Amino acid sequence: MRIIFIGDVMGPIGQETLTTYLPKLKAKYRPQLTIVNGENIAMGKGITKSLYKTILTAGADVVTMGNHTFDKDDIYEFIDDANKLIRPANFPAQHTPGKGYVLTKVNQTTVGVINLQGRVFLDSIDDPFAKVDEILAEIQAQCDYIFLDFHAETTSEKEAMGYYVDGRVTAVVGTHTHVQTNDAKILPKGTAYLTDVGMTGPYDEILGMRKERVIERFLNHRPVRFETPLSGRGQLNGCVIDFSSTKNAARKIELIQITPDQPFLE
Amino acid sequence: MRIIFIGDVMGPIGQETLTTYLPKLKAKYRPQLTIVNGENIAMGKGITKSLYKTILTAGADVVTMGNHTFDKDDIYEFIDDANKLIRPANFPAQHTPGKGYVLTKVNQTTVGVINLQGRVFLDSIDDPFAKVDEILAEIQAQCDYIFLDFHAETTSEKEAMGYYVDGRVTAVVGTHTHVQTNDAKILPKGTAYLTDVGMTGPYDEILGMRKERVIERFLNHRPVRFETPLSGRGQLNGCVIDFSSTKNAARKIELIQITPDQPFLE
Amino acid sequence: MRIIFIGDVMGPIGQETLTTYLPKLKAKYRPQLTIVNGENIAMGKGITKSLYKTILTAGADVVTMGNHTFDKDDIYEFIDDANKLIRPANFPAQHTPGKGYVLTKVNQTTVGVINLQGRVFLDSIDDPFAKVDEILAEIQAQCDYIFLDFHAETTSEKEAMGYYVDGRVTAVVGTHTHVQTNDAKILPKGTAYLTDVGMTGPYDEILGMRKERVIERFLNHRPVRFETPLSGRGQLNGCVIDFSSTKNAARKIELIQITPDQPFLE
Amino acid sequence: MRIIFIGDVMGPIGQETLTTYLPKLKAKYRPQLTIVNGENIAMGKGITKSLYKTILTAGADVVTMGNHTFDKDDIYEFIDDANKLIRPANFPAQHTPGKGYVLTKVNQTTVGVINLQGRVFLDSIDDPFAKVDEILAEIQAQCDYIFLDFHAETTSEKEAMGYYVDGRVTAVVGTHTHVQTNDAKILPKGTAYLTDVGMTGPYDEILGMRKERVIERFLNHRPVRFETPLSGRGQLNGCVIDFSSTKNAARKIELIQITPDQPFLE
Ligand SMILES: [Fe+2]
Ligand SMILES: [Fe+2]
Ligand SMILES: [Fe+2]
Ligand SMILES: [Fe+2]
Ligand SMILES: [Fe+2]
Ligand SMILES: [Fe+2]
Ligand SMILES: [Fe+2]
Ligand SMILES: [Fe+2]
Repeated sequence: MRIIFIGDVMGPIGQETLTTYLPKLKAKYRPQLTIVNGENIAMGKGITKSLYKTILTAGADVVTMGNHTFDKDDIYEFIDDANKLIRPANFPAQHTPGKGYVLTKVNQTTVGVINLQGRVFLDSIDDPFAKVDEILAEIQAQCDYIFLDFHAETTSEKEAMGYYVDGRVTAVVGTHTHVQTNDAKILPKGTAYLTDVGMTGPYDEILGMRKERVIERFLNHRPVRFETPLSGRGQLNGCVIDFSSTKNAARKIELIQITPDQPFLE
Repeated sequence: MRIIFIGDVMGPIGQETLTTYLPKLKAKYRPQLTIVNGENIAMGKGITKSLYKTILTAGADVVTMGNHTFDKDDIYEFIDDANKLIRPANFPAQHTPGKGYVLTKVNQTTVGVINLQGRVFLDSIDDPFAKVDEILAEIQAQCDYIFLDFHAETTSEKEAMGYYVDGRVTAVVGTHTHVQTNDAKILPKGTAYLTDVGMTGPYDEILGMRKERVIERFLNHRPVRFETPLSGRGQLNGCVIDFSSTKNAARKIELIQITPDQPFLE
Repeated sequence: MRIIFIGDVMGPIGQETLTTYLPKLKAKYRPQLTIVNGENIAMGKGITKSLYKTILTAGADVVTMGNHTFDKDDIYEFIDDANKLIRPANFPAQHTPGKGYVLTKVNQTTVGVINLQGRVFLDSIDDPFAKVDEILAEIQAQCDYIFLDFHAETTSEKEAMGYYVDGRVTAVVGTHTHVQTNDAKILPKGTAYLTDVGMTGPYDEILGMRKERVIERFLNHRPVRFETPLSGRGQLNGCVIDFSSTKNAARKIELIQITPDQPFLE
Repeated sequence: MRIIFIGDVMGPIGQETLTTYLPKLKAKYRPQLTIVNGENIAMGKGITKSLYKTILTAGADVVTMGNHTFDKDDIYEFIDDANKLIRPANFPAQHTPGKGYVLTKVNQTTVGVINLQGRVFLDSIDDPFAKVDEILAEIQAQCDYIFLDFHAETTSEKEAMGYYVDGRVTAVVGTHTHVQTNDAKILPKGTAYLTDVGMTGPYDEILGMRKERVIERFLNHRPVRFETPLSGRGQLNGCVIDFSSTKNAARKIELIQITPDQPFLE
């Protein structure tokens, strides 16, 4: 069982890069399941119904989100019906539309996909460590494999989550910092781990936002509207994971990176 | 002109890994200049005179630091005389011993090495962007090459610094998160850039601190003493950069990573 | 029904000031219930069994805590048996010794006392708003009156809690900033409210810590050990609240402040 | 020499309350100088040229600002000509329009008014402690009295500033938390001090923003637009300070508070 995971799709450039390369990547790697983080596709902040469909059409089976989930009001129109979209499961259950995990059938097997959000230097939502215990208690028995997109800022919280669920999920991959890390590995009890998968969007900007604006903000500390450009060179960051036949173990995790400096090889 | 930069050396395991592999790396890559970040060598927090000498003996020409610079009181005994050690230049000048940059002679050329610290999610010291302008105004004319260790938490502040000094320094490499990023590149105006070089220390822990303690802290939110283990498997993270003969431009930047899963190749 | 609440007792000076003035205050105001926040009594950080008894001996019926609850290891020796001590109820239940609320009999009436901690600029523990709902569902029916010590940093989170429980508890009083606010009032549905009651300890220092050390830290941003002085002029900050016979309503809330500039009047 | 200082005027309710009561307060207290913090007058965020004039017409001699200074673009149209408006002096000088202090003639005397912003839990601008030293070196000789509005979040940074400039300015009064503190005092070397003067605006909301919205944000952690109401009951918070004839010393500092529960007394 092989899955592909593509990091935060950022604005129009991210959308175009995804649309161009995801089919090629699927042809090359032949994954059984494709997961894409879509929290930044709507001009850098949030998602719309139309863009959700764009991601699915490009080849995603499941769309994960993050701290930008609710940035565009359009989300409220479709989140409860979007059965392939999940948002961080540790938003307060009682007050949050949508769901935090989904079980997907792939042939005879069931893959659980979970989305959680960290709290260090991010908003204080519910405890992701307690929440993952709760979700695993619910779905562990029904799932052959479990993939977790942990959307968090710090390397410490991400590594802590990795070791915390090691042997209890098949893979933990981080998102949110928009920069791919070079630490893909199989943890001692078999879980595939990567601190951050990186983003899919502008190659020549800062986190996908116009660099002039971001630098300006660091220089003058005044309010500035960050924006993602409409056109320019793109990059795609992702990873491919081979799940083992042993429950909650992976055989291999490899980085995917397509940039102007490192073009796609068939 | 080639330099090697090795990320945050963490405790006894980091020290041993550095001592073992730095000579081999120098034999393999034959750099003219070797820089090591030493902010975590003293049991994870700070540095001592004896460990500073250990790093130099292992092969470093310059030792850079970070937010842990002053964690061990021993630093006050030797920092003003340690002419190969620099701490973040944007600590308030009037109140801080030591220096934030150093010029090093390598044959006929002069290489400036600068250490700066970010402020996002770190202490509010002086502005690193204003400070780098100030330092460059002072040393630009005297230097053939300039290397900057930017010790910072977020990808945004690091990328902003990279683009801000692009074409004004030869390389900007980030430290502090202890996880190597996979985004080494040459920026448009020629500066080599890497968001984080990663750390040198324990392979099986969280940021080099005992994982049980870090996880415990995330679960119970009570005071716990983080500690780096005395023994265990190590890793080394670094990069090698080839400077161009053009001023403030690099030809190549490559990642170095030695781990139990990815052993050193001669 | 009248209660007195005394803010964070800070170190030896706080202890002495409490011991001196609490009996006099009780003689003057004749409260039926006395509550004291004790999170800083052990040299500024935490509490010990012996100091817990000191607070009770000085006249407290219930001791509340805050973010410093577990700073002194001694707490683990007695917290589970200390039936008059409560710590923030929103520490993760599964991982935290002690309890977050207590019901106290005062003649024929039952007063619930709850301790909660805010999350803005403090550690990300469990949601205090969800937790207060949960606790009120448990104890509302059994209580004639309910007092909440909300230990939090920002005025916004404290006011939000005040209005959130207005008409569901008798009084909400904030602690943690160590400076008394001048906004005591009865909220629209009857709950007495005060953003911060202030602290009980040194008068001539910063938050009760030696001012030279705190200023030094702001100037040089290096590690410095904060300490509370052993002797010096003290102050006491508190409030007195008259509960109404109407459930979850107060008639009056007044500030108490004893300082060298504003001595105790019989 | 007597001055009146009025805290952050918040939206239309703040504007109306100021317009109604400032003339009455001036008639009652007969101050020689009136200073008003105007950072929130434009619907809670920033100021416009027209509202700046409204504050002056209401009776202010100097308008101070804070972290919301640049929230409304209109500020760029008039800040450089607004000789009675100051913004935090520690915004980076090179990149910031406007000025951070002003000297005002009152009869034969010169009063310096300084505006600074803290950095704890606020944006990392320049060091307010270094900046106040720099400004005092410039203006000390020319001023008979100096008033400092220190716009900051925490009690620790505010008290630290108070003691740091004690004996070097005549008064330090904090703003930003929107809740008046009850710790007005004369520091050992003569400077009048108050941690926060409080705000002028809605009485029945949270910090002057609609309470339902603020509570909603604490419950669901989703993006919500905070807004200040157009009408409702108002409050005014301020203080009156009597400067001593001794340089950099005050004789008295008293709180001013006008609320529906505590009406204005002639
Ligand atoms: Fe993202
Ligand atoms: Fe994100
Ligand atoms: Fe480090
Ligand atoms: Fe660091
Ligand atoms: Fe406290
Ligand atoms: Fe506290
Ligand atoms: Fe304000
Ligand atoms: Fe403010």
